[in-house]
Amino acid sequence: MTHSMTEADMFEPLRLELRRGSLILAVLGRLRREHYGYTLRKALADVGVEIDEGALYPMLRRLETQGLLTSEWREEERRNKRFYRLSPQGEAVLVRLTEEWRSLNASVSEILKGDA
Amino acid sequence: MTHSMTEADMFEPLRLELRRGSLILAVLGRLRREHYGYTLRKALADVGVEIDEGALYPMLRRLETQGLLTSEWREEERRNKRFYRLSPQGEAVLVRLTEEWRSLNASVSEILKGDA
Repeated sequence: MTHSMTEADMFEPLRLELRRGSLILAVLGRLRREHYGYTLRKALADVGVEIDEGALYPMLRRLETQGLLTSEWREEERRNKRFYRLSPQGEAVLVRLTEEWRSLNASVSEILKGDA
Repeated sequence: MTHSMTEADMFEPLRLELRRGSLILAVLGRLRREHYGYTLRKALADVGVEIDEGALYPMLRRLETQGLLTSEWREEERRNKRFYRLSPQGEAVLVRLTEEWRSLNASVSEILKGDA
């Protein structure tokens, strides 16, 4: 089984797993300021985080269900748009996740910098 | 539903998701040098990455099935131990994952440093 796997086959699932945690952090970080889907995607893409709508919208719904985001429909430029932003609890969770992320990064850096 | 969730309830699943990707990178990074389970756990704990056996061993088996690790049973200090290390393909995947990790970190840093 392993013999038929290419390096790309091995890389892709791990890349997605690595990316998932960072994506959540990126989305929460961006939603300290209110955005609707389009401007959020653009704000993420501006720093190199590409996420397609099929992944972003389910994540937003899930984070809202979990109580981290609030949303409201509003008309802007004659179109109804759903605006998202961090809830107060979401802000508190973001602070803790950021600390966790820094700590994990320090550990991984330490491992990767040397000869193992 | 969201009203009954505490901040800790919200934080924990996201923390685990964030951690999962980093853990894989930490394990692969450590296995550039051969380890058996106990010394690997210790080497991870030394840089602050705590992982219990119930999580580590399934991860090692999975990474081996995916072709990233090789393992062999050997006797050491009169006990049979299973030693793991990166396969050549695992080394190539680690290089690419490390690049991905640096790039994600730069993006997330950029988002978190400012006012959103």
